Amino acid sequence: MLKFLSQIKKVSDIKKFSINQLKYLSQEIRRFLIKSISKTGGHLSSNLGVVELTIALHYVFNSPKDKIIWDVGHQAYTHKILTSRKTKFNKLRQFGGLSGFLKRQESPHDIFETGHSSTSISAALGIATARDLKNEDFNVIAVIGDGALTGGMAFEGLNHAGRSNTNLIVILNDNEMSISKNVGGMSKHLTSIRTNKKYQKAKVGTARILNKIPKLGHTLIETLKHTKEGLKSFVIENTIFEQMGFKYLGPIDGHNVEDLIKVLASTKELNGPILIHVKTIKGKGHSQAEKEPSKYHGISSVVSQSTYTFTNGFSNAIVHLAKKNTKIVAITAAMTDGVGLTKFSQEFSERFFDTAIAEQHAVTFAAGLAISGLSPIVAIYSSFLQRAYDQILHDCALQNLPVIFAIDRAGLVGEDGQTHQGIFDISYLAHIPNMTILSPKYPSEIESALKYALLKKSPTAIRYPRGNIKTVDLKSIEYDKNADPIAHIKNKGVLLLTTGKTVIWGFDVCQCLLNDYNIKAGLVEVPIISPLDVDSLVELTKGYSTIVTIEDHVLTGGFGSLVMSTLTNKEISKKYIHFGYENGIIEHGKIDELLEKYNLLPYQMAKTINDKIQIRKVKK
Amino acid sequence: MLKFLSQIKKVSDIKKFSINQLKYLSQEIRRFLIKSISKTGGHLSSNLGVVELTIALHYVFNSPKDKIIWDVGHQAYTHKILTSRKTKFNKLRQFGGLSGFLKRQESPHDIFETGHSSTSISAALGIATARDLKNEDFNVIAVIGDGALTGGMAFEGLNHAGRSNTNLIVILNDNEMSISKNVGGMSKHLTSIRTNKKYQKAKVGTARILNKIPKLGHTLIETLKHTKEGLKSFVIENTIFEQMGFKYLGPIDGHNVEDLIKVLASTKELNGPILIHVKTIKGKGHSQAEKEPSKYHGISSVVSQSTYTFTNGFSNAIVHLAKKNTKIVAITAAMTDGVGLTKFSQEFSERFFDTAIAEQHAVTFAAGLAISGLSPIVAIYSSFLQRAYDQILHDCALQNLPVIFAIDRAGLVGEDGQTHQGIFDISYLAHIPNMTILSPKYPSEIESALKYALLKKSPTAIRYPRGNIKTVDLKSIEYDKNADPIAHIKNKGVLLLTTGKTVIWGFDVCQCLLNDYNIKAGLVEVPIISPLDVDSLVELTKGYSTIVTIEDHVLTGGFGSLVMSTLTNKEISKKYIHFGYENGIIEHGKIDELLEKYNLLPYQMAKTINDKIQIRKVKK
Repeated sequence: MLKFLSQIKKVSDIKKFSINQLKYLSQEIRRFLIKSISKTGGHLSSNLGVVELTIALHYVFNSPKDKIIWDVGHQAYTHKILTSRKTKFNKLRQFGGLSGFLKRQESPHDIFETGHSSTSISAALGIATARDLKNEDFNVIAVIGDGALTGGMAFEGLNHAGRSNTNLIVILNDNEMSISKNVGGMSKHLTSIRTNKKYQKAKVGTARILNKIPKLGHTLIETLKHTKEGLKSFVIENTIFEQMGFKYLGPIDGHNVEDLIKVLASTKELNGPILIHVKTIKGKGHSQAEKEPSKYHGISSVVSQSTYTFTNGFSNAIVHLAKKNTKIVAITAAMTDGVGLTKFSQEFSERFFDTAIAEQHAVTFAAGLAISGLSPIVAIYSSFLQRAYDQILHDCALQNLPVIFAIDRAGLVGEDGQTHQGIFDISYLAHIPNMTILSPKYPSEIESALKYALLKKSPTAIRYPRGNIKTVDLKSIEYDKNADPIAHIKNKGVLLLTTGKTVIWGFDVCQCLLNDYNIKAGLVEVPIISPLDVDSLVELTKGYSTIVTIEDHVLTGGFGSLVMSTLTNKEISKKYIHFGYENGIIEHGKIDELLEKYNLLPYQMAKTINDKIQIRKVKK
Repeated sequence: MLKFLSQIKKVSDIKKFSINQLKYLSQEIRRFLIKSISKTGGHLSSNLGVVELTIALHYVFNSPKDKIIWDVGHQAYTHKILTSRKTKFNKLRQFGGLSGFLKRQESPHDIFETGHSSTSISAALGIATARDLKNEDFNVIAVIGDGALTGGMAFEGLNHAGRSNTNLIVILNDNEMSISKNVGGMSKHLTSIRTNKKYQKAKVGTARILNKIPKLGHTLIETLKHTKEGLKSFVIENTIFEQMGFKYLGPIDGHNVEDLIKVLASTKELNGPILIHVKTIKGKGHSQAEKEPSKYHGISSVVSQSTYTFTNGFSNAIVHLAKKNTKIVAITAAMTDGVGLTKFSQEFSERFFDTAIAEQHAVTFAAGLAISGLSPIVAIYSSFLQRAYDQILHDCALQNLPVIFAIDRAGLVGEDGQTHQGIFDISYLAHIPNMTILSPKYPSEIESALKYALLKKSPTAIRYPRGNIKTVDLKSIEYDKNADPIAHIKNKGVLLLTTGKTVIWGFDVCQCLLNDYNIKAGLVEVPIISPLDVDSLVELTKGYSTIVTIEDHVLTGGFGSLVMSTLTNKEISKKYIHFGYENGIIEHGKIDELLEKYNLLPYQMAKTINDKIQIRKVKK
């Protein structure tokens, strides 16, 4: 069935194909992607959008000698297929299987790993600069979406590259979408280029083109004359990119593999930084994904459960509170759906702000709102909020502004893997002056956490995990009424200190300890991670010699470390067992599979606790 | 002598002056600034550049009802003078005295605090948006330098504001300089605007202008006709700002107070986001500062000492090593002088990169260099490196790339105050996977620290403080030979664990303990903060019941916390006394004054230690 695709053993095999065969190849790849992703889950829309572009890149350039750097990296499936990884797609994003992102250990064709947005131009410029210093000779190509281009870091890279004389090709994959619909001045500018009347109507002779773009050279002009769009698209002048010092080519139809090849090939004779503007359609070739690219951005292999997630909890809570409290405003950085703000954005459109992929700006924009007496709630994934660490500290915390951070995807996220695991936020927030970190254990507790945060006159972070958690018979926390640490199970012996999602883990550990080892254990929930309630902790840990802390987070600077520091500073000596991630690099896979690998499933933790207790007994 | 300045009791008093009187006023302010700053020290060049602009802003707008937001904030001296703080300039940047930056507690005219670059547009847009939501009516003006505009965050702000319909005035204070000479594509673009031939030659009629800028309205055109520059400057079209959705006015002579007033006043009739491009001269009116603005950027009150600073140590070390090791490349984010890379940039210009104020890009650019086999050394102040936290973690550490971070100004920096104190870096780095943190105690140890880092195949941070430290009779660390924790003083009793600069503090504490309290104390230096050498620590702390840790850093997540976690996890129970900053908000002042306030001078720490020991004795 996949006549051409099956002939590709190594990436250079596509160079044998004719243009027509490449067109068939792109159809085959599209069919393969749709079929494969519908089974395994994965990023569909973004990958369907770049099939022809990826083919053209590998047709024209010689990877891995030439370096192709993919921004974000979730759109590299065709790249993976062409670089000998097609057979591994049955385990895409699965534990031990193919990563959904670039991975250097998977292939020499994966040059630079990523997962966060807007890093490709910087990395590519570094690689190109090193090439020049080492007198090497190859092409460096960064592929960046128009969404990622709204990240300030991309602008910093353009700014540096535009002034350099370095040979660097930046391909702007313009699908008019980041994950949500793209917004901002840059998007407006790109639209104006795409719809430029000159572009629509111009019939321009070679002479005038040569005059307009004298540095482009005659051969290029000859080549461009024979593209479908002809020369007319290239008369657009004064793009933002040219003003930054780039040579600008485009816009080009990103689904016309022939034109793409011609234009990419022509860049080989150009010097300095070049930007090629490629128009693509997200979800191309899949009618539903084309219509609703946001919905099909990332799809899950399993039919979505009707469970009530933490994101649902946040979504409902903010809408509910905002009805009465008109000071509430919500901010997202291009993740309206993901963070659960769709309903809010519909009901309170005036109080809703999508800053585009711009976490830094989002946070300081919120600081400006807070300083004006409003109650901004910034909803960003834990891992993406890393981008705004300085803004949280410098703009919100030093001025003690009541900005609320709704930190979704805190803890392991699973299939997206290491760049997306939200396992550093306690460490990067706890030392920030004036910061309070809440950690609700159930989606239903988020509303009270927000209420509590809304009453505070200082910054507050509310961290909660991806997905949902089973409900067990434990008292709910109502933050606005009483957020003291609470002893859910009062057995003596060993004490488990837990927070958020890990309260439920701890509950299960208690069961396992009792059933498997006949060990009775106490269970304490700590609803506020920082600052810790010292007096309560001292009181609740009295009589226990061994304290077990459980967190969905790295150990260094995490919950367990904060607990231990607090008690030790009170000159209270305990023995500790800390459960969490020793190292912050956690691969992709289902969350339970990952937990099992790191011995963090309840039965495994129970065993570890028992083992340690036995060893201590022997020592004595 | 200061005829007009002395008449200003409140800011609105300047509204009574004629244009001519305002010109005299600006001369008086300039004289006052030069005289005052030459006594107290402070930012000279940047403040001399904005005298007329500040006068014009306060003449046209009604602060604090209208909100003026200054980017970075070190150029706000004229603003402080006009807003009733002139008499406080004798204690500028001194402990308990006037801050060198904006401070909300100093004045209602100080709207938003800052110290780091590129935040003003975001904050201003937040304030403007809140105004609209609350149906209030005032102007919001962000004043941002061309240097700060190279920070990606500023671009994110422009991108959001450009698409909004919010009334917001951004004033681009274009002096062609950040702290070092400005670089990058944006700078090139601004230069092209300034030197635009149309701008130089155009003689344009009202009709054509109206055609070009139809939205500006007739009254504005009439006003602009009567500025010195006339209408001609306003024909420049297709600036990057217009493409982002701003109305662009300029460039305007920033030292012509009359034109500034006319143009600023005219913006009141415009709607939506407006950018006014103002050309200023850094150091204006001070011949030496005009010639060498970088040298006069910040000047010290005391004649600079001939002491050998940590920055000197780094400066010489990198030059020395780079002679033999051609893989070494150095990166700065617009702080060539400050971080000590001037000599390197002269001797190895091809291997030197100034990214402009773009810490994020600088770090990922370095990651690209490292992945290509070079040895990038990124030299950035501790506080500014906060901006690149995600890039260190996501781009360098997850891929385990050997990028070296030379972190200058780690610890208290003194007069620049809270936004510049480098007291969070251990907390924001220690949990990052694969990261090693070195902490040399003498400038002369930096070379061996770099050698050590150059041998590693993973990211390494070298943190060292501002200024210098006295040399005492303690063994130097040669990192590339042996970086184990070392017991400098082996007394039993109390043990002091120290690192970097605090080794010397600890040495003095030992003396004080002995002299003042007859307490013998041991002194251990820990040259590598993370990962800690567990076995050595266990060995060296044996026999001590009380461990004292001393650090020039916040306590949460800092050195003492890491030591305590390490030992406690080994089930070693100790009593701890941690010296460091309880809270991360440390005001400005001389470092010794600040240390004294926080009871961190050696004699104070000795007293605290003695007190605690006495209390424990009583308890027993």
